[in-house]
Amino acid sequence: MSYPKRVEELMEKLCKLPGIGPKSAERIVNYMLEENTESVRLLAENILSLKNDVRLCERCFNLSDDTVCSICADEKRERIVCVVEEVKDLILIEKTGFKGTYHVLGGRVSPLENVSASNLKINQLIERLNRESFTEVIIATNPTPEGENTAEYISGILKKMGVKHSRLAYGLPVGAEIEYVGVQTLKKSIEGRKTL
Amino acid sequence: MSYPKRVEELMEKLCKLPGIGPKSAERIVNYMLEENTESVRLLAENILSLKNDVRLCERCFNLSDDTVCSICADEKRERIVCVVEEVKDLILIEKTGFKGTYHVLGGRVSPLENVSASNLKINQLIERLNRESFTEVIIATNPTPEGENTAEYISGILKKMGVKHSRLAYGLPVGAEIEYVGVQTLKKSIEGRKTL
Repeated sequence: MSYPKRVEELMEKLCKLPGIGPKSAERIVNYMLEENTESVRLLAENILSLKNDVRLCERCFNLSDDTVCSICADEKRERIVCVVEEVKDLILIEKTGFKGTYHVLGGRVSPLENVSASNLKINQLIERLNRESFTEVIIATNPTPEGENTAEYISGILKKMGVKHSRLAYGLPVGAEIEYVGVQTLKKSIEGRKTL
Repeated sequence: MSYPKRVEELMEKLCKLPGIGPKSAERIVNYMLEENTESVRLLAENILSLKNDVRLCERCFNLSDDTVCSICADEKRERIVCVVEEVKDLILIEKTGFKGTYHVLGGRVSPLENVSASNLKINQLIERLNRESFTEVIIATNPTPEGENTAEYISGILKKMGVKHSRLAYGLPVGAEIEYVGVQTLKKSIEGRKTL
């Protein structure tokens, strides 16, 4: 005897979600079985409506309730585009108080994961730059080899187009101890040192 | 700007599930947004059907597709009742090859969590013992203070009823090193030593 079929099926499906293993799936299903029916129903309906109600902004590919996201619709935003890999990066940059607009690539160039530049929203970025006027493009891809490659690829295009662009600074993370930051970071933070 | 309302709502709901924090909830929602609509819909429907299709066995309170679970319905099972706290304990004991039946208490006596003996299926166990005939009751609550208290409480009742009963053995976990098992476990394993 194991769990009833419905329970086993749900555990299998939950295991496919990121960060959930068999043990967590078991705990989640047991929690749902004990929880009141109404709140479990609301969770299920929320999951269903996620795919129906949430779409990508047709300009910047941010998640949106509407055809254009609240940032693109906001006319007070500075005419700067910050290019990010994923929506979660955009959310974090928003928290810094950045007041420009964004362009979400939907990933990074990664031959190992079979993602080439054509799979990303790079052409759409070029079209936007031709159509709208921006004072600067900030390339905010991750400081990983893939993020760096993507940044270089985009930088090459922007140079040809004559568009002013920049890359996020490398350096010491705030609150870190030099002992633990790693040689490459330390090297970059020396190269990028600021005169006081 | 943060995530669209639907996304925020779903993240909040996911955070209430055991083992899921804000970061995991964010990753799960992003995964669902990227995943194809059909498989996300199936997940949501599986959650809904969980509450509709799965119930508790009216005899032993195991999870069941039917009024009586497959173990209680199996006439070849030995006439022994193994009393466990939760269904997940039953599932684990099944894996050992145990061929008796079970009784799921639905928790353990815990004054701190406001769970008293009357909140557990102890009366139902007594009724079962009066109604059906069993050769032995194995008390398999957890080796925690709460599990121990629950075991002692049940043992007191069974003694008065004159029902033969036993408790799972304490001792060294298989594969552990004595250095790491803890003094209480070691003490119990000395007390329970077997002559070779």
